[in-house]
Amino acid sequence: MELSLKDIATLVGGTLLGRPEIKIGGVAGMKEAREGDITFLSNPKYLPFLDETRASAVLVGEEISPPPGKTVIRCKNPSLAFNKVVEQFKPSSNGFPKGIHPTAVLGKDVSLGPSVNIGPYAVVEEGVQIGKGSSIGAGSFIGHHSQVGRDTLIYPHVTIREETVMGDRVIIHSGTVIGSDGFGFETVDGVHHKIPQVGHVVIGDDVEMGANVTVDRARFGKTVIKKGTKIDNLVQVAHNVEIGEHCLIVAQVGISGTTQIGHHVIIGGQAGLVGHIEVGDEVIIAAKSGISKDVPKGMVLWGSPALPIQEEKRNIANVRRLGPFFDRVKELEKKVEKLKDSQ
Amino acid sequence: MELSLKDIATLVGGTLLGRPEIKIGGVAGMKEAREGDITFLSNPKYLPFLDETRASAVLVGEEISPPPGKTVIRCKNPSLAFNKVVEQFKPSSNGFPKGIHPTAVLGKDVSLGPSVNIGPYAVVEEGVQIGKGSSIGAGSFIGHHSQVGRDTLIYPHVTIREETVMGDRVIIHSGTVIGSDGFGFETVDGVHHKIPQVGHVVIGDDVEMGANVTVDRARFGKTVIKKGTKIDNLVQVAHNVEIGEHCLIVAQVGISGTTQIGHHVIIGGQAGLVGHIEVGDEVIIAAKSGISKDVPKGMVLWGSPALPIQEEKRNIANVRRLGPFFDRVKELEKKVEKLKDSQ
Amino acid sequence: MELSLKDIATLVGGTLLGRPEIKIGGVAGMKEAREGDITFLSNPKYLPFLDETRASAVLVGEEISPPPGKTVIRCKNPSLAFNKVVEQFKPSSNGFPKGIHPTAVLGKDVSLGPSVNIGPYAVVEEGVQIGKGSSIGAGSFIGHHSQVGRDTLIYPHVTIREETVMGDRVIIHSGTVIGSDGFGFETVDGVHHKIPQVGHVVIGDDVEMGANVTVDRARFGKTVIKKGTKIDNLVQVAHNVEIGEHCLIVAQVGISGTTQIGHHVIIGGQAGLVGHIEVGDEVIIAAKSGISKDVPKGMVLWGSPALPIQEEKRNIANVRRLGPFFDRVKELEKKVEKLKDSQ
Repeated sequence: MELSLKDIATLVGGTLLGRPEIKIGGVAGMKEAREGDITFLSNPKYLPFLDETRASAVLVGEEISPPPGKTVIRCKNPSLAFNKVVEQFKPSSNGFPKGIHPTAVLGKDVSLGPSVNIGPYAVVEEGVQIGKGSSIGAGSFIGHHSQVGRDTLIYPHVTIREETVMGDRVIIHSGTVIGSDGFGFETVDGVHHKIPQVGHVVIGDDVEMGANVTVDRARFGKTVIKKGTKIDNLVQVAHNVEIGEHCLIVAQVGISGTTQIGHHVIIGGQAGLVGHIEVGDEVIIAAKSGISKDVPKGMVLWGSPALPIQEEKRNIANVRRLGPFFDRVKELEKKVEKLKDSQ
Repeated sequence: MELSLKDIATLVGGTLLGRPEIKIGGVAGMKEAREGDITFLSNPKYLPFLDETRASAVLVGEEISPPPGKTVIRCKNPSLAFNKVVEQFKPSSNGFPKGIHPTAVLGKDVSLGPSVNIGPYAVVEEGVQIGKGSSIGAGSFIGHHSQVGRDTLIYPHVTIREETVMGDRVIIHSGTVIGSDGFGFETVDGVHHKIPQVGHVVIGDDVEMGANVTVDRARFGKTVIKKGTKIDNLVQVAHNVEIGEHCLIVAQVGISGTTQIGHHVIIGGQAGLVGHIEVGDEVIIAAKSGISKDVPKGMVLWGSPALPIQEEKRNIANVRRLGPFFDRVKELEKKVEKLKDSQ
Repeated sequence: MELSLKDIATLVGGTLLGRPEIKIGGVAGMKEAREGDITFLSNPKYLPFLDETRASAVLVGEEISPPPGKTVIRCKNPSLAFNKVVEQFKPSSNGFPKGIHPTAVLGKDVSLGPSVNIGPYAVVEEGVQIGKGSSIGAGSFIGHHSQVGRDTLIYPHVTIREETVMGDRVIIHSGTVIGSDGFGFETVDGVHHKIPQVGHVVIGDDVEMGANVTVDRARFGKTVIKKGTKIDNLVQVAHNVEIGEHCLIVAQVGISGTTQIGHHVIIGGQAGLVGHIEVGDEVIIAAKSGISKDVPKGMVLWGSPALPIQEEKRNIANVRRLGPFFDRVKELEKKVEKLKDSQ
């Protein structure tokens, strides 16, 4: 398949600086691109490669002045524009085979919307409802009385325990477990007695969860992940946690029980949050931070225990200055002794 | 279903302060409860909500003086008491369908006790023994010659590799892998040669493991998790580790090879322990700590590298005082110069 | 089964100090060994146990002088030597049942080499190629058009998404997910739009991956793990990451998108690397470190944010000296005041 640069400029609504008749046959990253490919420049870190790339054309932001002889298409958002071009060359498909595989085990009173796909060896228990156009991957398990919305993708080997409620256009990657029991015990005389976990999990529209994520069901009530929130691989969401809309939770984050997170919060990889705290809207938590207290709206935190990022940076810089500083104090001590002696 | 407060007070052995004929129709948390619900107060952090809750009654500790007009039932352990009430409204069931599903694949010489349940597409290999009343979830795998005790629950999509030994009343949540090979290599001339991992895993009675946990088999001998220990989601237990009785291991902890942990140890989320160390009984390790040395009995540690918690707190406070402190030294230097000049 | 020490010395090419006719009936660790067992001493930390072990013989390095009366076999590499002995007593077998289980679902145009084993309920999609002698465990999923090399072991419950390319003698443990979508979104007006992840994953010969690992497919191009690299449990490898040959990545490490790692790099447990950086060959990153910048070849780093390990150690020591140091400054201030007063 080939597209001309003229066609691509039209497709993305951009301005072509170069010859419109050049033919493009593929898409690739800046460094990997070869002649005949189109690529894009979004992260300013890659600006130095603009001159070096072997791509025949580059989608760039409107503010970029290309090096002489470089063919570019200027557009508002080069990354989104590139997505459109990628879609032309590699039309996305969820890769799920069509229809209900004969080996899928469906419990009684399962309700399936039109155009639902269910892979081989999937198990859908009693009373589950699956909305129009959703797909359940091979070997996935949907526990009884769960609800799956429309156009939702459950990849192979996902475990969704009973009574989970899931919205439309949700994507759950392989190995993820939703609705496992919360980690709750009452210790009496040194023996840990299990606290029944009789709540469930509610997942909003347009949520995406990576691979091998764990989301525990509530002790009672519900664990909630709201609309548009995206969760990376290997994240732990404990019982009764509530995550607001449009958050980004990076890989290996752990969120302890009953903690509440506002909307548009960003949590960097491997950060950890204790239980029973509230994190305000639009908070940013840097990678590896440890959060043990409520966080007001809009704060940017770093460190473990975390501080406002500027304070944490100052503390780190201060620690790194300690060596010479110790020397200065030693020097002072000598001078003071000398002064005393000479008095 | 409805219960009167009189009935509930009798059920939990508590003292009712309020009208005994009030009817209760449900259970909920302090904040979510509505009229007609009963809730409980266990964590003192929630004391301020006692006045605000819309619940018709609250299970509280014996020392609590309720606000005027608030109906409470005083009892010794409100959390355990609440469990009893929850059990009335939402009788727990392990949710496993009864019997052996016709699609379950059983190897030769598999021995099943009475009342064993095995879900669809579970695979139980040759020589496995499963005790009375245990349940194996859909799609779970039990490797050859493993032993599963009585009344044990293996949720869907658990992988138990060959020769694992598991006690009674064990609970293993979905996605957990028990008995994978330990991470052992011998490096010769820059190439890592696999060290055979020919040991196995032994899990005591009443152990619970969360979702997507990994427990490696021993190089030889055994990896051991003793009676009553509870392990949260996404925890890593390496080869030849030994965890004592009645420990609590919170989510995303990592325990490296051959480390030994005493009884009643608590390890906070995301903490990491190096290999080949001994952690004494009743030790508490705070979340995110890094432990690189033996820990004597009863210590409470924090930080990475960890210190006794009071020392770590002092160090953190000291670092946060560095800015003004640097200023004081600068000031001192000026004064000393002045003193020298005026001498 | 029994072997004489003479036989074992010959097997490992070592020098026996002791009676050649002694019979050995089993293998065990230094501490667990009983009379009749053979064990080995490799980690110098265990040297004190050499005298105490009840093993009838110990494989030791050539430089070890055994305590009087202790039977040893001196050899070049006691750990590798021990592997050979273990192999005699417990012949490794991958434990996979032979042949293609009748319940395995094979898509069209699947190409299987000779002696391929596929377990019950495995799903192998259209166009997959599996090389000679490889085994696919029960319930594993191999997405369409993936390639698996020769003598590769895929344990039960592995998910390999479409178009993955995997070399020879690769080992993938249970619960691992390869080829899930990268975590890529373009945020416009507070809404996160999914960036198509149309690349794939390429895994070199002799790579081993532990349980519940996640490796994301590339946005475009490929995520690469090169020959001989070994990855422990619960590790996260993000989209477009490239890991060089013969690296060791310990449990719960997280590597963010597009980061490049050289050959023979060692990354300790729970360390995290940000995206878009380069880590040079033979770098060593200590456990729990946070890496946010390029790392030149051969460096040894520790801390978060990480420093050369000697600097980090100095900083930690400096922080621990702050208490008495503050006292010294307070003392200086008093002295200076006194000097001023007495002027």
